[in-house]
Amino acid sequence: MYVILVYDFGEKRVAKMLKLCRRYLNWVQNSVFEGEISDVRLKELLMYIKMFMKVNEDSIIIFKTASQVFMERQIIGRQLGSTDNFL
Amino acid sequence: MYVILVYDFGEKRVAKMLKLCRRYLNWVQNSVFEGEISDVRLKELLMYIKMFMKVNEDSIIIFKTASQVFMERQIIGRQLGSTDNFL
Repeated sequence: MYVILVYDFGEKRVAKMLKLCRRYLNWVQNSVFEGEISDVRLKELLMYIKMFMKVNEDSIIIFKTASQVFMERQIIGRQLGSTDNFL
Repeated sequence: MYVILVYDFGEKRVAKMLKLCRRYLNWVQNSVFEGEISDVRLKELLMYIKMFMKVNEDSIIIFKTASQVFMERQIIGRQLGSTDNFL
């Protein structure tokens, strides 16, 4: 499946979250990751995140779609992350 | 169409961007908006944004999909924005 993961973490945990997400997804912008990932790998990522995340302070939203073919991406302005295909 | 709009703006322009996007989409998290929007309305929003955006400093990524039915959303931790339907 293809996911977009956005997060809002407390200052003390942001670096750890960035480092961890980088092992599973592509960084595209401040607190935004995207990429193809299997169900198992996503569960694994979330398991590691939950080891340090403060659920009453931090927030993650994962937008999932079956495949990247259902998703069109438009980039305006400065391109930050590594986005292999973009409009 | 259903869109997820993420942005990374210079400090001076963030408030203006937030205020403008709120008129078109739902705020769900820091620098993240989502919602159903027509092509015309999205073009209108981008037209207004480009009036103050600094394209060499600021960045917007818009993820588009035909409809929200192609998108599943999982929220973990603190829920920030108004998300009408969520897992």
